[in-house]
Amino acid sequence: MEAIRKSLTNAPNRRKYARRDFPREDQAAVEIDYLPRRCESTVMHIHQASPNPDSDSIWPILEPTIRAGETYTLPMDMSRADAIAYWFAAQHEVFVVQENKQTLGTYFIQPNHQGGGAHVANCGYITAPWATGRGVARAMCAHSLEHARARGFRAMQFNFVVSTNQRAVALWQSFGFEIVGRLPSAFCLPTKEFVDALVMYRSLM
Amino acid sequence: MEAIRKSLTNAPNRRKYARRDFPREDQAAVEIDYLPRRCESTVMHIHQASPNPDSDSIWPILEPTIRAGETYTLPMDMSRADAIAYWFAAQHEVFVVQENKQTLGTYFIQPNHQGGGAHVANCGYITAPWATGRGVARAMCAHSLEHARARGFRAMQFNFVVSTNQRAVALWQSFGFEIVGRLPSAFCLPTKEFVDALVMYRSLM
Repeated sequence: MEAIRKSLTNAPNRRKYARRDFPREDQAAVEIDYLPRRCESTVMHIHQASPNPDSDSIWPILEPTIRAGETYTLPMDMSRADAIAYWFAAQHEVFVVQENKQTLGTYFIQPNHQGGGAHVANCGYITAPWATGRGVARAMCAHSLEHARARGFRAMQFNFVVSTNQRAVALWQSFGFEIVGRLPSAFCLPTKEFVDALVMYRSLM
Repeated sequence: MEAIRKSLTNAPNRRKYARRDFPREDQAAVEIDYLPRRCESTVMHIHQASPNPDSDSIWPILEPTIRAGETYTLPMDMSRADAIAYWFAAQHEVFVVQENKQTLGTYFIQPNHQGGGAHVANCGYITAPWATGRGVARAMCAHSLEHARARGFRAMQFNFVVSTNQRAVALWQSFGFEIVGRLPSAFCLPTKEFVDALVMYRSLM
C-alpha cells in the first residue's frame, strides 16, 4: 500500500509541510492520513472510490455545489444519475476524504487530454458544505499532486477556475499553480453576471 | 435556408471580405457558397453532416491528421470507429466542405462547457491533405463564426492550439482570435519534444 502521511503545521504559511513517504505496495490503495489544523487528534483518510458503494456518500457532496452553480460548469438542475456518471466518467479516478467514516470531500483525477496532451493531469475537487474551513481541499490537492506524480504525469492543469472563487484561486496558488490563461466573461453566474475564468497550471517535474 | 455567400478578395489582407446575408429559413441547412482565391468559378459548399452517409468521406480527412499526431490531442493509433465516434460526439454539430461533391474539410462546433460556460462555443477543424492552401480552413472558420452567432453563442474558444502550428495560429488571429493563455510544455510532439499549447478566444458580441 502506498501510504502518504502529512502533518500540516498550524503556522500561517501553510505551504510548508513535512512529508514522509512509506514504501509503495499497492497503487490502488493510495491513502493519506492528514492531521488537520483544528484538531490534532483527528485523522482524515483519502482512499479511492467507486460508484458502488460510494455514490450514496458522494452525491450529497456534489449536489450543493451543482445546485449553487457558482464554481462548476455543470447544469444547476443536473440529476443525481448524470452527476454520478460525470464524476465517475471512464477516464476519472475518484477519491474520497473520510474522517470517522464520514465523507468530507471528493475529487477526480484524469489525463487532461489524450495523445500528445496525455502527460498533463486534470482534477476536480469538491468539499462537503459541512466540512469547509478544515483543510479538506488542501488535503485533496496535496494528495492529488502526489498521486499525479506517482502516475507519471508531468504537470497538472485546471481548465476553468471561476475568477470569483478567490478562495480556490488562492489555495491553488499556495500549491504552486500559476494563472496561465484568463478567459474573458467565460462564466455566467446564477446572477446572470459574466465573469472571467482562469486556466491554472503547475509543473510536476 | 440560411445562406451565407462570401466573396473573399485576392488582396494580401484577406481579413477584408464582403458579406451578404440572405433571409434565414432553415437552421439545419446552413450553407456557405465560397469563392476561393485561386479559382473564381469554383464554389465550395458547407453543409451539416451525419455519421451516415458522411463517415466514408470524413474518415480519410481525419486519419492523416490523427496519424501525424502534430496538432490534435488524439492517440495516433486511434481506430476509425473511435475517431468517428469522437468527431460525431453527442454534443457536436458536424459540417463538411464540399466542392464538386468532393469533401475538402470538416469541422465540429459544440458548447465548450455546460452550465455557466455553455455560452462559449468550441470548434475543431481539419482540412483534407489534398485541399490545403485553398482557403478551406478559412471558409470553415468563417462559417463556424456565423453559425455560432446564429446559435446565440457569445464567444468562441480554442482550448488547445499547438504553438508549432503557426499557420493555424496566424489564421485564427486573422479572424480576431487572441491568445489568452499559454500552457507550458503541454503538448508532446511525435519527436518527443514538448512544446507549448495556446488557448485562443474571441468574443462574438
